[in-house]
Amino acid sequence: MKLEKSVFIATSLDGYIARGDGNLDWLDKANLSVPEGEDCGYVSFMSTVDVLVMGRNTFEKVLSFGGWPYEKKVIVLSSNNLEIPENLKKRVYSSAETPEELCNRLAADGIKRIYVDGGSVIQSFLAGGLITDITITVIPVLIGSGISLFGNTVKDIELEHISTKSYEFGFVQNKYVVKR
Amino acid sequence: MKLEKSVFIATSLDGYIARGDGNLDWLDKANLSVPEGEDCGYVSFMSTVDVLVMGRNTFEKVLSFGGWPYEKKVIVLSSNNLEIPENLKKRVYSSAETPEELCNRLAADGIKRIYVDGGSVIQSFLAGGLITDITITVIPVLIGSGISLFGNTVKDIELEHISTKSYEFGFVQNKYVVKR
Repeated sequence: MKLEKSVFIATSLDGYIARGDGNLDWLDKANLSVPEGEDCGYVSFMSTVDVLVMGRNTFEKVLSFGGWPYEKKVIVLSSNNLEIPENLKKRVYSSAETPEELCNRLAADGIKRIYVDGGSVIQSFLAGGLITDITITVIPVLIGSGISLFGNTVKDIELEHISTKSYEFGFVQNKYVVKR
Repeated sequence: MKLEKSVFIATSLDGYIARGDGNLDWLDKANLSVPEGEDCGYVSFMSTVDVLVMGRNTFEKVLSFGGWPYEKKVIVLSSNNLEIPENLKKRVYSSAETPEELCNRLAADGIKRIYVDGGSVIQSFLAGGLITDITITVIPVLIGSGISLFGNTVKDIELEHISTKSYEFGFVQNKYVVKR
């Protein structure tokens, strides 16, 4: 029973997933040049995912957009008590498990693939050797500072390049598998 | 008389051009998987370059490799006095000019394209709006910390994606032009 732990995310060319305060204005601006109906593989990727795992910051950011975009089960990793809106309580759960504990539980439950989202959660999964594959869509802009996708890894992490797709509107999507 | 100011560089997937101490062991290791004779477009790029511009750190790093790899004229930007080995004095010059002063002088001299190399020089050219195009070869490894290619840019810098080439050994080379 193998659990795939996947990242699917956009970064600026200088490797940030958001400005320091979480602002995505640069991404929203870039998205204006994306033709209607083009989702850069998001729906296709999402269709392979059983459960989303994110941190508190990402959860609160998504909530701030108004409305809730996910049909699938979401687990929010948080060591502190998390307030989950009443209407989401059947789809959103919080957990204080470590990434490893969570993965073991989900694998035992027969879950096949989780979508790991948000800078600090991605980084803690990476540090634990728990990420299987990473799809990064690189946006052609430098924003200079912000929340870095990878942060400081303690040791080198080698990846295998799987595929690259470049879009006519300037995004480049790369898929890598983390080497064991 | 238009002077092109070009970057041609390799980075780790997390955006570093070297470890903090300048070490390129991760790149040397990755290069072991590159077939003999494959230079990822380096010779072709170099054939379009008239002058190389680099900083003191890059100059000293190149010197430390032993031998001197460049036939073309090299200008080392350094505010301090630079010691240039006797055998290089006909090809290597130091300058305390600002990037803008240097570009104006070279353009007036009829130079068509310079190769801007090294983290801090690239960053000061970028900050001055002086980079024309950037070719980045992304190596499939995370090294976690080091000398960042882009550093902190003061404002957003938008780029136009020109081309992407992925190599079977896992490198992905992207070319961008800086938007004016």
